[in-house]
Amino acid sequence: MKNDPLVIFTPSGKRGHFPAGTPVLTAARQLGVDLDSVCGGRGICSKCQITPAYGEFPKHGVTVAEGALSEWNAVEDRYDRIRGLPKGRRLGCQARIEADVVIDVPPESQVHRQVVRKAATQRDIIMDPATHLYYVEVAEPDMHIPSGDFERLKDALTAQWQIGEVTAPPSVMRRLQPVLRKGNWTVTVALHRKRAGGPAEILDIFPGFHEGRIYGLAVDVGSTTIAAHLCDLRNGNVLASAGVMNPQIRFGEDLMSRVSYAMMNPGGDAEMTKAVREAIDGLARSIAAEGGIEANQIVEMVFVCNPVMHHLLLGIDPVELGQAPFALAVSESLDLEARDLDLGAVNAEARIYILPCIAGHVGADAAAVALSEEPNTSPDMVLIVDVGTNAEILLGNRSRVLACSSPTGPAFEGAQISSGQRAAPGAIERVEIDPVTKAPRFRVIGFDIWSDDPAFATATAGIGITGICGSGIIEAVAELRLAGLLDARGLMGSAEQTGCDRMIPEGRTHSYLLHDGTAQGGPRIMVTQGDIRAIQLAKSALYAGARLLMDEMGVDQVDRVVLAGAFGAHISPKHAMVLGMIPDVALDKVISAGNAAGTGARIALSSLAARRAIEQTVGEIHKVETAIEPRFQEHFVNANAIPHAVDPFPHLRSIASLPDVNFNANGGGGEGGRRRRRG
Amino acid sequence: MKNDPLVIFTPSGKRGHFPAGTPVLTAARQLGVDLDSVCGGRGICSKCQITPAYGEFPKHGVTVAEGALSEWNAVEDRYDRIRGLPKGRRLGCQARIEADVVIDVPPESQVHRQVVRKAATQRDIIMDPATHLYYVEVAEPDMHIPSGDFERLKDALTAQWQIGEVTAPPSVMRRLQPVLRKGNWTVTVALHRKRAGGPAEILDIFPGFHEGRIYGLAVDVGSTTIAAHLCDLRNGNVLASAGVMNPQIRFGEDLMSRVSYAMMNPGGDAEMTKAVREAIDGLARSIAAEGGIEANQIVEMVFVCNPVMHHLLLGIDPVELGQAPFALAVSESLDLEARDLDLGAVNAEARIYILPCIAGHVGADAAAVALSEEPNTSPDMVLIVDVGTNAEILLGNRSRVLACSSPTGPAFEGAQISSGQRAAPGAIERVEIDPVTKAPRFRVIGFDIWSDDPAFATATAGIGITGICGSGIIEAVAELRLAGLLDARGLMGSAEQTGCDRMIPEGRTHSYLLHDGTAQGGPRIMVTQGDIRAIQLAKSALYAGARLLMDEMGVDQVDRVVLAGAFGAHISPKHAMVLGMIPDVALDKVISAGNAAGTGARIALSSLAARRAIEQTVGEIHKVETAIEPRFQEHFVNANAIPHAVDPFPHLRSIASLPDVNFNANGGGGEGGRRRRRG
Repeated sequence: MKNDPLVIFTPSGKRGHFPAGTPVLTAARQLGVDLDSVCGGRGICSKCQITPAYGEFPKHGVTVAEGALSEWNAVEDRYDRIRGLPKGRRLGCQARIEADVVIDVPPESQVHRQVVRKAATQRDIIMDPATHLYYVEVAEPDMHIPSGDFERLKDALTAQWQIGEVTAPPSVMRRLQPVLRKGNWTVTVALHRKRAGGPAEILDIFPGFHEGRIYGLAVDVGSTTIAAHLCDLRNGNVLASAGVMNPQIRFGEDLMSRVSYAMMNPGGDAEMTKAVREAIDGLARSIAAEGGIEANQIVEMVFVCNPVMHHLLLGIDPVELGQAPFALAVSESLDLEARDLDLGAVNAEARIYILPCIAGHVGADAAAVALSEEPNTSPDMVLIVDVGTNAEILLGNRSRVLACSSPTGPAFEGAQISSGQRAAPGAIERVEIDPVTKAPRFRVIGFDIWSDDPAFATATAGIGITGICGSGIIEAVAELRLAGLLDARGLMGSAEQTGCDRMIPEGRTHSYLLHDGTAQGGPRIMVTQGDIRAIQLAKSALYAGARLLMDEMGVDQVDRVVLAGAFGAHISPKHAMVLGMIPDVALDKVISAGNAAGTGARIALSSLAARRAIEQTVGEIHKVETAIEPRFQEHFVNANAIPHAVDPFPHLRSIASLPDVNFNANGGGGEGGRRRRRG
Repeated sequence: MKNDPLVIFTPSGKRGHFPAGTPVLTAARQLGVDLDSVCGGRGICSKCQITPAYGEFPKHGVTVAEGALSEWNAVEDRYDRIRGLPKGRRLGCQARIEADVVIDVPPESQVHRQVVRKAATQRDIIMDPATHLYYVEVAEPDMHIPSGDFERLKDALTAQWQIGEVTAPPSVMRRLQPVLRKGNWTVTVALHRKRAGGPAEILDIFPGFHEGRIYGLAVDVGSTTIAAHLCDLRNGNVLASAGVMNPQIRFGEDLMSRVSYAMMNPGGDAEMTKAVREAIDGLARSIAAEGGIEANQIVEMVFVCNPVMHHLLLGIDPVELGQAPFALAVSESLDLEARDLDLGAVNAEARIYILPCIAGHVGADAAAVALSEEPNTSPDMVLIVDVGTNAEILLGNRSRVLACSSPTGPAFEGAQISSGQRAAPGAIERVEIDPVTKAPRFRVIGFDIWSDDPAFATATAGIGITGICGSGIIEAVAELRLAGLLDARGLMGSAEQTGCDRMIPEGRTHSYLLHDGTAQGGPRIMVTQGDIRAIQLAKSALYAGARLLMDEMGVDQVDRVVLAGAFGAHISPKHAMVLGMIPDVALDKVISAGNAAGTGARIALSSLAARRAIEQTVGEIHKVETAIEPRFQEHFVNANAIPHAVDPFPHLRSIASLPDVNFNANGGGGEGGRRRRRG
């Protein structure tokens, strides 16, 4: 009624007239204002905290006087005494509207508050998880109207929360009666829905108002590493992040060797399935401990993984993925239960969502990258590269998105490199070679200091310099090229040819001595000709994949490059371009997205809407199969060269440019490097 | 088109014009004629057999000439050679309409053929199970249009069978790829739907066209016995029926002693749950062997049971069922999976349906009886009594149905009777006592001969006479009353009082010697005063329950009595009425329905529609709680007497009526018996 007090909610700006005496929570609900409540307005949960604003509000055309809300009441007093209510705050279910008022809903009182803030893309995710807690008061049994305790609980959920179809698994049915009685006919249930508005399942039940929380685990099952984020399902906060090695490594370093293991060994796939599931179980247990929660508080898990990991996780023999036509057993997203995957550490009723796979070589991890990076909404042409043992490559904009994968092998992860190691303290991660003196300087993981700093030796003495990781070897190879120690074909020159006494002969080839730690009992860290070849193969595969997509898209250049993955986070864009890993693009247009697959998993954990969105997007992505595309081979061969003898970004570092070189096995040099052709 | 050939299907009478060349199966589908097909018209499954009729059909106004159907073709020829096609039959998918024709669809070619014929009620059940087999041809994978094998299988089900939403559990996903390839991209899937038209789940998958069948198990989990029927899910045929003892008996003979066991022994409920599940598993294994099938061909199970068995089967502590207000944890019907109940013998993906419970004392077994006997559709007032350790009682007609349970105890099953035993060969099941000579004659289970036949001793010598079963003790007590050896209060007279030397003193009471087998090394079988008391208590409870429902219904008599359960099948209606177990009604209005609960379970196994129907019926049944109803006690006390000194149906047996007797502990007799009062 127009004569009733006016209520204006901020920040939403929603407004309406309500009869004096209406609780703020009721007004908020009627206006569709996002004000949280778990207990349904009973003054128990304190989720509905609001802040009334007093004074003149010309913008809203109201004046709010003292007394606009009812007086501070006993429920609020008790809550404040026991737990403390921030100054100026009221409980929305207790404070009643008495006169015109402006009410602010603080972020922590909004259900759909924004989480997973991504600085790079300025995109926020609205919290909308599949599992929520609800507090209900259940009618006691009446012998004369016999109905089951479960039926009365359902009635309460319908009456108090407008929730329709509800089921409960036997494990919850089993605990229902004692929990209802312990809670004196009040309970909190964790209710899971696969689809917004769809039927709900009770995953867990607690007596009375449950102060505890429920959690989700976003898991990226990589070929080498299994990484997980433990997230609060209420607000999306990450409590802990942790990773373990994928124990399947003992069956093969890369995906194809695992597929081969399954083909050659009857039951080999089952062995690998068991190993990865046990590792995930252990990870869930340790991450729960790290986050200070019980593992059975984890009621949801989201998995992203490449197709071979996907199949092995599901217990499906990946043999078909090892041969054309690379048929997936199933590509769509999957809703499963923890018991389906023998995951026993988490809640017995934990539900699992696995993102859809894009194609036989482009998995749910690539889908997660697409969910995180949203090439399908990009106005400009973006190339997204997630480098692992396989590289997943997405290219597109809001008109069209293409995807492929490319078998880069493990070189970018430090494997198959003579002094290679995983990215861990002690590993060389940054390298510079002086183009004049040919002397290197470098940095190792764990220390924010270059090796030519006088304090370096003392600082690193404890851990030592143990090897070179993926980003380190990429920089080393690029710097060798820039310093004229490596020719365009990828041949290293001799000490004689280069005038550099760090070039050590090894058979008919030469290695570059990056660091000699033997005096301190450490290793000699060399870049060998074999290392150069491994990196050349890997980068050629990556580049060829990107080029293939560019051909398919009909573009000769891209506007942006996003480097995803742990490796992408550490790689130097400049060195990647010197090496010819990625197409040339302005340096400031190369962005590291960090663990985009993991971010995508977190988004899917936080939002049912995001699950539906990525399912649709994946259906619209056009897949390109590298393995059978003759142009891929052509691009691969053409990409073998290391094109840039001259630093393409000299303004970033002041060095003198040198003429390009060409080392024959039997000497000579100085010839102009062959430029990479484009298909 | 009017000029096109006319096709008339019998027995449905459906008719239509179709262009020459239309396959009979296509015409049947377009007219909605119920003609089966598993292979979708590919000439593989032979389910669509039809019989064309030739000649003049004045009733239909057509003349059918030779050549009305296309010629016998190669597919039919091959099928006939390999498997044989009955004379006159054609395959509906191969035979094409060429001219006016009358086509008969034999019963075995109808999907919805009627099964579960119940002679008593003339009711047929239409076959409409939750799980069906479908044969499909799946597109091969195409690298350029990458989709999972599962997605292409779903596409095939949609295109070839118009089936929408389909999911598959991981165990099926796991087998999908090898099965598709083994079947050369044709498979048969067992598709389960919980609701008609609802989402479907693939329970099993077979390469090519699967000649095998899928089966269901209808299980009645009684306190004493677990009984099962193995049914063909295609046609409802019962392949085998079998039962095992409920191993929970070792925790307590009756329900309340099992509830007590759970209350007194921590983990006692879990022990009982484990025991009953293992017994069901064993029963599934043995019944499959008996039916000549593999246990994993059992893809569905339906359970009916009383509330305590229901909870223990589900793993729910039944403690609340042992005390007011007798709250069920859950009363609605349940859709579960075999793994939920740790049932490992049947198919790993077998689905379970448990009928709804009516109330805390009236379980899913009573619901199954209601499904089988349909009191809710009865024009006359029917009393349905299912006697077990508890009696479930239903009273009503199409206007209203009432239900209660009554704690009869195990006396009717031969327990708590001095010479009592279960119904098994050697047990006395029929008894007559000559009212003049007071001499008994009897029959034992397994022999179709009375004990006064000269051939009896020789015939029974092998097994011997081992005891007396429930129906035998009821007849014995009723006959004792009719023979004047027992008075209305239930006291047996002495030899002196009765002039019968079979009355043997035992302390202050007397027993009747029914049979003395000691000369042959067998037992003396007596009916003791204690036996009389046990039967009196049991029959009073049963009668009081029926009377309570009659009070509630406002009727003083019923039109029909249905005796359900194994016991009901063997009990003599006359003796039950002499005893005062059931209200008086014309003898031909007392019907034995056999194992009505088991029949109800079979119906639920055969028909999704029946599941929905009983769920609705149960919601409409009005429950009466005997335990707290003062009138129940009143009826119970009043029902203690054994009213009929005079055979109420003397025309059935020519005997002289005797004056009623009244035995005091210290002698006397001849007084008129007290008639039972009605509340």
